[in-house]
Parts: sequence; structure tokens; C-alpha cells
Amino acid sequence: MRQFQCDYIAGCHPDLLSALVRTNAEEVPGYGLDPFCNRARDLIRQAAGTPGAGIYFFTGGTLTNRTLISAALRPGQTALAASTGHIAAHETGAIEATGFKVTELPSVDGKIRAEDLLAACTAYETSCEQFLLARPALLYLSYPTETGSLYSGEELRAISRICREHGLLLYIDGARLAYGLAASDDLTLADIASLCDALMIGGTKCGALDAEALLITNEKLKEGFLSQQHLRGALISKGRLAGVQFAELFRDGTGAFYRSLGVRAVQDAQRLRAAFIEAGITPDGSSPTNQQFVRISARKLEFLDRNFRCEPCGLASDGRQLVRYCTAWSTKPEAVEELLAAIAQTKDLP
Amino acid sequence: MRQFQCDYIAGCHPDLLSALVRTNAEEVPGYGLDPFCNRARDLIRQAAGTPGAGIYFFTGGTLTNRTLISAALRPGQTALAASTGHIAAHETGAIEATGFKVTELPSVDGKIRAEDLLAACTAYETSCEQFLLARPALLYLSYPTETGSLYSGEELRAISRICREHGLLLYIDGARLAYGLAASDDLTLADIASLCDALMIGGTKCGALDAEALLITNEKLKEGFLSQQHLRGALISKGRLAGVQFAELFRDGTGAFYRSLGVRAVQDAQRLRAAFIEAGITPDGSSPTNQQFVRISARKLEFLDRNFRCEPCGLASDGRQLVRYCTAWSTKPEAVEELLAAIAQTKDLP
Amino acid sequence: MRQFQCDYIAGCHPDLLSALVRTNAEEVPGYGLDPFCNRARDLIRQAAGTPGAGIYFFTGGTLTNRTLISAALRPGQTALAASTGHIAAHETGAIEATGFKVTELPSVDGKIRAEDLLAACTAYETSCEQFLLARPALLYLSYPTETGSLYSGEELRAISRICREHGLLLYIDGARLAYGLAASDDLTLADIASLCDALMIGGTKCGALDAEALLITNEKLKEGFLSQQHLRGALISKGRLAGVQFAELFRDGTGAFYRSLGVRAVQDAQRLRAAFIEAGITPDGSSPTNQQFVRISARKLEFLDRNFRCEPCGLASDGRQLVRYCTAWSTKPEAVEELLAAIAQTKDLP
Amino acid sequence: MRQFQCDYIAGCHPDLLSALVRTNAEEVPGYGLDPFCNRARDLIRQAAGTPGAGIYFFTGGTLTNRTLISAALRPGQTALAASTGHIAAHETGAIEATGFKVTELPSVDGKIRAEDLLAACTAYETSCEQFLLARPALLYLSYPTETGSLYSGEELRAISRICREHGLLLYIDGARLAYGLAASDDLTLADIASLCDALMIGGTKCGALDAEALLITNEKLKEGFLSQQHLRGALISKGRLAGVQFAELFRDGTGAFYRSLGVRAVQDAQRLRAAFIEAGITPDGSSPTNQQFVRISARKLEFLDRNFRCEPCGLASDGRQLVRYCTAWSTKPEAVEELLAAIAQTKDLP
Repeated sequence: MRQFQCDYIAGCHPDLLSALVRTNAEEVPGYGLDPFCNRARDLIRQAAGTPGAGIYFFTGGTLTNRTLISAALRPGQTALAASTGHIAAHETGAIEATGFKVTELPSVDGKIRAEDLLAACTAYETSCEQFLLARPALLYLSYPTETGSLYSGEELRAISRICREHGLLLYIDGARLAYGLAASDDLTLADIASLCDALMIGGTKCGALDAEALLITNEKLKEGFLSQQHLRGALISKGRLAGVQFAELFRDGTGAFYRSLGVRAVQDAQRLRAAFIEAGITPDGSSPTNQQFVRISARKLEFLDRNFRCEPCGLASDGRQLVRYCTAWSTKPEAVEELLAAIAQTKDLP
Repeated sequence: MRQFQCDYIAGCHPDLLSALVRTNAEEVPGYGLDPFCNRARDLIRQAAGTPGAGIYFFTGGTLTNRTLISAALRPGQTALAASTGHIAAHETGAIEATGFKVTELPSVDGKIRAEDLLAACTAYETSCEQFLLARPALLYLSYPTETGSLYSGEELRAISRICREHGLLLYIDGARLAYGLAASDDLTLADIASLCDALMIGGTKCGALDAEALLITNEKLKEGFLSQQHLRGALISKGRLAGVQFAELFRDGTGAFYRSLGVRAVQDAQRLRAAFIEAGITPDGSSPTNQQFVRISARKLEFLDRNFRCEPCGLASDGRQLVRYCTAWSTKPEAVEELLAAIAQTKDLP
Repeated sequence: MRQFQCDYIAGCHPDLLSALVRTNAEEVPGYGLDPFCNRARDLIRQAAGTPGAGIYFFTGGTLTNRTLISAALRPGQTALAASTGHIAAHETGAIEATGFKVTELPSVDGKIRAEDLLAACTAYETSCEQFLLARPALLYLSYPTETGSLYSGEELRAISRICREHGLLLYIDGARLAYGLAASDDLTLADIASLCDALMIGGTKCGALDAEALLITNEKLKEGFLSQQHLRGALISKGRLAGVQFAELFRDGTGAFYRSLGVRAVQDAQRLRAAFIEAGITPDGSSPTNQQFVRISARKLEFLDRNFRCEPCGLASDGRQLVRYCTAWSTKPEAVEELLAAIAQTKDLP
Repeated sequence: MRQFQCDYIAGCHPDLLSALVRTNAEEVPGYGLDPFCNRARDLIRQAAGTPGAGIYFFTGGTLTNRTLISAALRPGQTALAASTGHIAAHETGAIEATGFKVTELPSVDGKIRAEDLLAACTAYETSCEQFLLARPALLYLSYPTETGSLYSGEELRAISRICREHGLLLYIDGARLAYGLAASDDLTLADIASLCDALMIGGTKCGALDAEALLITNEKLKEGFLSQQHLRGALISKGRLAGVQFAELFRDGTGAFYRSLGVRAVQDAQRLRAAFIEAGITPDGSSPTNQQFVRISARKLEFLDRNFRCEPCGLASDGRQLVRYCTAWSTKPEAVEELLAAIAQTKDLP
């Protein structure tokens, strides 16, 4: 059975594994105060062009999201997110469990439109009973989005500008950032970092084993952030797990290696996309990255399911199944070829 | 200036005030353990036809909502509500501040449709990754709704049935219940109580001074509920404030007096509605109760604003102002006559 | 049965009741934006000598405490309180339910000693792993304390100075403030207000029906506080209940009437104290105010219990019962005489 | 510089590292649903003699504690813990941030005494105003404790019995369990598991890289626990990190290998203890395990600090420094010999 259901099915990239093995016996302090973490911090700051940024490590994305958001908001404030956003749709109410409301904005192709963001800000600002409303104070967006799409530079700049003009922090969840950087040159890592207050640089889905880095440029957010991490159970005793891996992911100080981990996955995903279209299976959304959502008939899906695992996502509006096929840095070339061949074979199925 | 902006502008009904004066010097225990509260409990149970119900008193609606909902849910569960529902739209994230997600359902004329509720239940139940989703465990709805509309008996019964079949508690916010009972004979107090697990019987908007009663029929919810109240700061030291007033509101043991407080307000509101239509001012929604939302041109509104205060509710989709006019048990007949005359005068304004 | 178990057994003072009756029919805006509340705010500011203070009204003490403390703290910070403090001992974990730890300091005669406060601050400041510790950020104390004792001016000034030097907010819970002001001239209302960042001026136990005022002098704490109130369900729809009563309590603009409500209660309580000592019943603590805690033998208690209700407080360390007798503004003179006589009669009981 | 400040300074045990390398390329499902986790679950259940237990994996101890405790308690309930307990003293208020109060019990040598536990239960049960108190519903204790001490079988059985008789869940934090099992034969893993409702089997401090296992025997606690994990951000995307390591730690199905990782560390620590005593440096507490707390003069400490890092723990009551020296599964024999020699050299220092 070939596994295409998600992008976290393998361990870590061989180079990261070697680094873990090489450093395993060294005795270092805990809580991310070790030299590996410090080196990783320097390299990430360099690659992102943010020399003064705070860099914090986590073992997972939901933990990162809820720690950052609960540290950023005060009671009575709310985080805005696309209705398809991870914190709105797939985290069991993990943000709300820290006491904060997530306000859903409409999403088009997985993305928030500047006009909808502006409307939400204006609705609050022009209300004559503000004390009855949660105040928009942070915008959460994903790059790439949960549906695989990407904001253009123009789109992200417009959103960033609105956030700054209306006093919202901008937090970008880059759980799959390597794939986004690989798929488009419109926005570099440094561009993205410069447009937001905090950015999660995903490791777990991009070559690492249970490791994410959070880059914070906003000075106020950095204050006492270690304590915020511990409070949410997110401070890693042996921070070296993340430090060693991120020092390797950003070993070149430019992000080139990190980005490179997304390149083939994106190419493979686009080949799958073309094959789906060719076989009459409709892609859902514009995804130029490593996740492909398609609407597929029951018969075709049954055929593919025999050898290829995908993730079911419910029924599409046209009654067909909505499913996701993911590639990853670890996807084997032969698996892709096999899936391409199988997709072609579905052509004659109803 | 005549005040039509809301239904909590006067103190309490003269009969309730007399009762407060009459009992003021009596020395009784605190925390709602006094004879006034106990008598009010008996009368409410009798009127609602729920002899075993727990009855708890509060000083306000948001406090009632958040205490009940946070006591009913376990971490990882969510309360469903109409997107126009009070807990979704007008409580600053007060439910989320207790740690729980409010999931918004589409609303039509302020009401939740059975089919949308069913779809939300089914989406959860058929998900193959339930542990990533907040579990629907309670449905919140308002009777009357925030837009003044009323569920029919058939509608409420369908919703209640779905809740029971899918393991959701049904909590009905009756902050304006007297007006709902006065506006329709389709559902009596006893009918409503029999269809849900908990029901707020509103006092503050229905003749009382800062007092609400919460009727709980669900046995599990009643367990240790006093402690839940205290935990949220909702246990009233001098519970007599609510006890004396509710004993008066339900003095007849049938709810007739309580319902009667809504009758004239509803009649007046319907006269206003007819006058608005007559004057080319479009009602928004079907409201048969005491709140009338209308779309009104800037010129007409300016004219009415000179002598009549309404509540602005933003822009309607057609560019006109959306505003609310409320009547109440305390609205003076002459104020209604004056407003009717003024509405008629707007006819010639653009 | 004469009731001495607490100081909230009667309704409100006749003058306050008259004011409620007199103003009942007036139509005013909700949420504390009415003229009664505004007048009460002005009078309280004048009496407290704090012209710029924010004044907010609540229906109860626990609601006040948890709203203020949760608005003042950020995640990872803690409120310090005496182990006998109301928020530590008698609120079901109501502060923790908002997400914040209450750190208990040792208490002597119900009071926090400056040296223990200083030690707690120093322990945090000198820790080499601060991120593992909750940061002391607010001190909660009660005046009078839960055991009836009073801080001297010297004591409170020392505590206030430490708070300011170590970056802690000082919040004083004056649920029984009238009795404290009546019992000692060492600290006036203005003195107390000048030493802290926020002060609850108790109404419910001092002549009002379910009403407390919170005076905030700290500018940062005032920001958006209405929203904090609504978030915790603490914003009163008909704020007039508190506004009318507090405008009456502070009608003279000096606090003289408010303080006067405590005078007789304190005198009566001190007569009871003397009588207990005379009868071989030992007072527990120094209380110069309206609460008297005594250690009493089972036989004597049984005798008094026949006609006088007190509040049981567990076993004292010497094996006798620990009970509380409270006087209040509403205590009837004849009830005090009867209790004095009964205490004298216990002399011959074992 | 030799590092004795804690027991999480090295990576993972070579056998665990080999297993991670060996399995790295295998493609498996996420969220702990992989075959490695399943195998680890089976082995742990076998070793603990709890065939029906639920086994959940975490990346850290605080995350485990707060997830378990917040899932176990309902609003208004409290977790009891020793005042020296990790959740009371070293987690920044992480439990309170989930909304629950931690009630501190006195501790003697780091341990809770059965009599103090019983007193806390009785105080609640005999209170006549229970609704004002947080209800004791869970007892947290550590084995070994934070001060290195161990409960005897008799002590733990007495505590377990009280918990069951008074309706408290018993949760044992075994972050350093391997050292406890190695230090005493009085209680086996199976004994401990049989006495409690939930047990954390520590990996991070006992040979693993950021991995803990939580064993739950209580049926009700197991319900929906995956969702509780996700809600707190504690569900590991690549659960294999923990699964592979725990499958190795418990590869024999008896716990023998896991326990063996503590043996030398405990022996070394006891040799250090003897050396300290010999050198006039007083141990603080009875610790038979791998942590040794000592009271040491400034001069002696300065001498040792040159080559050996320990953890400062503030001032002891006698004015000397209180510091901790830890051994671990990874401590190098030569480091121990060097420290022993250095301790002997301090004998002549004041």
C-alpha cells in the first residue's frame, strides 16, 4: 500500500537523522538553552533576514498555534481565521480551550480576501456597542493554506497592511512552508517574515521529526515567551531534538536546503494534478503545492484505494467524494509513477 | 426623548417592586437558600409542568448562558448556535473564555433549520478523524430569537428530536420568553420545558430587575450546580432579589401573569410593524414579537431620531440603515401613539 | 430564631429602598451607562479623593474579584493572597477557572505580613529558572480581612510600597469596607484608595441589595474594562440597581453615610466580644470589626444555638468548635441584647 | 565541565537511537496510530500487568500532567498535590491555566502523608457550605518525588485506599520512574499501576528523547482521550518518536530493561551521598534515588562549581546553599569518580 494520505508518514530526512546520531552523546542543558538550538536560531534569523527575531521550538503545530495565540491575545480579543483555517476547522477547539474566540472569515480557495478582513475590522470599529463584541486583535493565516493554495505577494502585502493599520497582529502558520517556498518565487522566506509578527516554520511536515520553529519579530510578543511555552506544556525538556534538526535544515544560512526539500514533492503533486484532470477527476481549488484535493467518483476511488491510501474529506458539493493526495519530501519516485499510471487507468471507469 | 432602543430601560414591574418593599426587612439565609427563592422554585416548576426540575437564579443572561454551557460541556466538546445567536454574536467571547468553542450554524430569519443541525451532527459522526474535531454536545437556541422570530412547534420538536437522537443537550435561552409566549399559542411554557434540557426564563427583559431563572430538567446537569454557579461568580449572595421577583412573576402557578407582561408589548410592536410597512420602511425578518428590525433610509431615520431612540444595527445589504425598535412591558401607550404618528409622517421623505 | 450567621440576611437599607422605588419608572439606558450610575461614580470618586478613577458596578463579590484579577494578569502570572483570603479559601477555584494561579502566603491573624510578601517577590526574582515559575503580579488582600482583622496604616503602607517596588498590582477587597472604616480611624477611604490600584467598595454586606463598586485608579487596568466585565458575564443589564443604591450610599460625597452604616454593627460586635470573654468563650483573632470568631464548647454552643444562628467554621486547634457571629447594619438592637444575655447564661456551662 | 545539574542532558540511549535509525524510512500513519506505538502499548501493558489499560504518548511531562488532570477534573474540582509537587511548584501555573485549582498539601520529605490527605477530604466532606469549596477529586503524587524520596509500599497503599474511599482519582507522575524502580523493590511497576488510575512512565529522564507514556486504567478517563490530547496540543503528529523508543525501552515485556537504566545512576548517586556526608555536606531529605539535594557552604560550592555543574535551589533554612546533583542513565563513570574525589577535597574548606 502506497501512502499518500498525508505528509508526515516518514521519520526525518537522512541528513537530520545523521545529525541526531552524531550529537546524541553530547551533554547539554535542557529547555532549548543548548548550543544546537542557539546555532539553529542564528541560522534561521540569517535566512529570514530578521537578526533580532526570537526563535522558539515546539514539538508540534497545534501546540505552537495555541501557545502563540494565547500569548498574543488579551481577554475579550479574538483571532480571525479563514473558516477553512487549521485553528478553526481541525484543532478540536484548542484555541478556545485557552479562553479565546476564533472568528471565522469567509475563505475563497482557502484564502482570506483583504476585503473580508477589512470588513471585519470595520464592523468592530464602527459598532456603537464595542464592549459587547470580541475585538479583532490577531489574524491567523496559513502559507500554504489548508487547501494547498498560496497567497500572492500582492495579496499578502495587502493583508499585512490592513493588519498594521487596524492594530491586528499577523501570525502565519507555515506548517508546510517548504512546499510553499518551492512552489512560488513570488514570496521568499524573508518577504514573509517581514510582513508578519510571528511565523511558524514547519519542520514536521518538511523533513523533521516532531519539530517546529516559531519566529517572532514583534518585540512585545517576545517578552517572557519562554514562560508562555512552559505554561502550555510546550517547552521541550530536550530542546536538542528541534535544535539539531533545524540547525541542519538551515545549515546554509539561506533556507536553500529547507526549500529544496519541497521541490520534488511539488513537482510530483503537479504531475498528479495534471493526470487527475486528464482522467476526468476534478481538482478542488488551485493548489500549486504538495496537497491535491480532488472530486472523484466512487468507482474511481475504489479502484485507486486498492493500492494508494488517500485522505477522505467528505462529500463534495456535486455529490462526488472529496479526497486528498499528498506528496512529501520523502515520497518515493516509484510510488508517484505507480499512482500516475493508476490514475490513467481510471479514465474508463464511470 | 422616547426610548425604544431596548427592553430593559425601566426598573421592575410595580407588583414586583411592592413585593421587594414588603419583604425587605425579613432576615433570611443567603445564596438562594431563602424561602422566597424556594417559593419561586415551586411556582415555576408548577407553571412549567416540571416537578423535578432544578431552578437556579442569576442576575443576568450572559452569566446564565456561560455558567450553564460551561457546566454542560466537557473539554473537546462544542456548543452549536445560530450565527446570529447571542452567544455567537454579542457576548465578547464569553463562552470561549470558559474554554469552549461555539460552532456557528447558518441561520434563516434568526432560526436554526433542522437540516443544518442534522448536517453538523452527521459531519462529526461520519468523520474518520473525530479526534481532530470538536464534538457537538449542546445546541443553544433563543426563543424568541435575537431577530424577534419564533420557532414553530413543529420546528422546535424536530430540533429537539435531533438533539436527543444525536446526544446533544438542548438549551433554550428565553431571555425574552414572556414576549414569545404572548405572541404565539403554538408552544406553551410547559411545551418548551418538555423539549429541552435547560431553559432560561428571562426576568430582566420581562418585568424584573436583574433577575433570570434557569430551569434544568436534565438530572446530570443538576448535580453540583450550585458549585458551578459560585465558580463563575454567579451565585447571588442575596438571592432574595431574584426569589421575591420570580415568586411574584409566577404567583399564579400557571405563568399567566408572566405571559401577560408580554401581551401589550407584542401588540404594540405589531402595530409599529404595520406602520413601518405602510410608510415604505421594510421590516427585516418575520418578527411576531416585541423587537422590530427595519431597513430605513437615512432621511427617514434622521426624522424619527429626533424624538425616538432606536438601536442602530449597521448597514442592511441594500445600503439602508438597519435599526431596531423595541417595545416592552413598560412601554407607555402614549409613546407608542407618538411613534406611530411619526412613522406615518416619514411617508413623504425619501 | 435570631440570625447572626452572616451580614447579608436583610434586604437593603430603607434609604436605598426608597431611592429604588422613587426612580423605578424612569427609563434609562442599560449596561451602567445611566445617569444613576454616573452620579454614583462622581460621588464615589469625590469621597475617595480619586477624581480620575474608573468606577464599575457588579452584583457580587466573587464576580468582582475574578473579573478584576483575570483582567489584571497575563498568562504565567499569579495573584498572591493570604491562605485565609477569600479567593484562596472560599471561591471554589473561581480565580483558577479564569486560568490563573492563586499563590498562598502565610497569614497571621488573617493578615499578610510585609516580610512574607517580600520573601515571595525575592524568591521569584532571584530564581535562575524564572520561566518555570508563575510570576507574582498582583497582591490580593481584604480590608477588613476574612477573620475580621484590620491592617494598620503602617502595615498597609509597607505592603503597598513593596508592591510598587516589585511591580505587583495591589487589589483590595473591601466587601466589608464600611465596617473597617467604622472600626478604625487609622485609614480613611481616601488613604486606602491611594495605596492600591483597585478597590472593591462593598455594598451587599454594607446596606445594599446585590451591589458592589469597583474603583480602579491604575490607568492600564481601566482600558477596555467594560469589555472585561461583559466577558465574565458581569456587566449588569440594568446597572441602575447598583447605581441608584451607590448614589444613595455616597450621597454626601464624603463616604460619611456609608461609614455610618458600620458604626453600630461594630459597637455591637465588640460588646459581644467582651461578653464572650467574660463567659470564658475565647475569641479567635483580634477582630475589631463586625465579625467575631470564637472557640466554644459543645455544651455552650448547643445552648446558644437554640435561639441564635451562627456560622460553624470547623474545629479549632484546641478541639472546641470554631464559630462566627456577625452583626450588620441591619441587626436589630433587641437581638443583640438577647444574645448578650444568653452568652452571660453560658458561664456556668462546661 | 561535568554536568550534574539534571537528568536530561544527553540524547537517548544508544539502543533507542538505533531503533530510531532502523525504522526511520518506514511510512506509517500519524497521531500515534502507527505499528510502533501499538507495539509499545502492548509491551507496556504486559510489563505493567494492565491488559486493558489505555496508553498515550507525549513529548513532555508538563504536557502530560496538564492534559491528564484537565481531562479528569470537572469545573469546581481541585487536584491535591504536595506543596513541593511539580505541578504546584514548577509549572508556572500550567494546571491552573486549564482552569483548575491545585490545592497544596503539606509535604514531609517530599511526600504526602495519608493523614494530611484524609484531613483534606474530611474538611471538604464535613463542610456545611460545600458549594463554596473546590472539591478534592484527584490526588497528584510523584514517584520518585521531586526531592528524590520514595513512598513505601505501605504508604502508597494507604494513600490509594483513601483515594478510593473518598472518590479521588490517583494520578502518579513517574517522570523518573526508572530510578524509583531501581532504588527499591518494595513496589514494582505492576504494583504501582494497580494502585492508581493513571501513571506517567517517564522516558525523557530515563533514556528517551522527548517521550513519555501515560498509562490509564480508569475506564472513564480513557473515553475520548485522543481528543483531550489534541485539545491541549499534545497529540504527536509523528507519534513514532515515542512509539519506537518505548517499544525499545519495554522490549522485554517485563520492564527489566527500563528499570536497568536506573540502576547505575542510583548506585552512583548513593556513593555521592555518602561522600557528601563524609565531607560534612548535609543531604537534604532521604533520597534513595538519583537526585541528591545537599546543604553546602559557599566556599565548598565555589570549589565544586569549577568543574561540576549542579542546580542551585535557593537558600536552605540554615543559611547554606541548597543545591542538587543528579546522576542519570547517561552519566559517565569517570565523571562520577572525579566528582567523588572533588567532594573529598572540600573536607578542609569551611
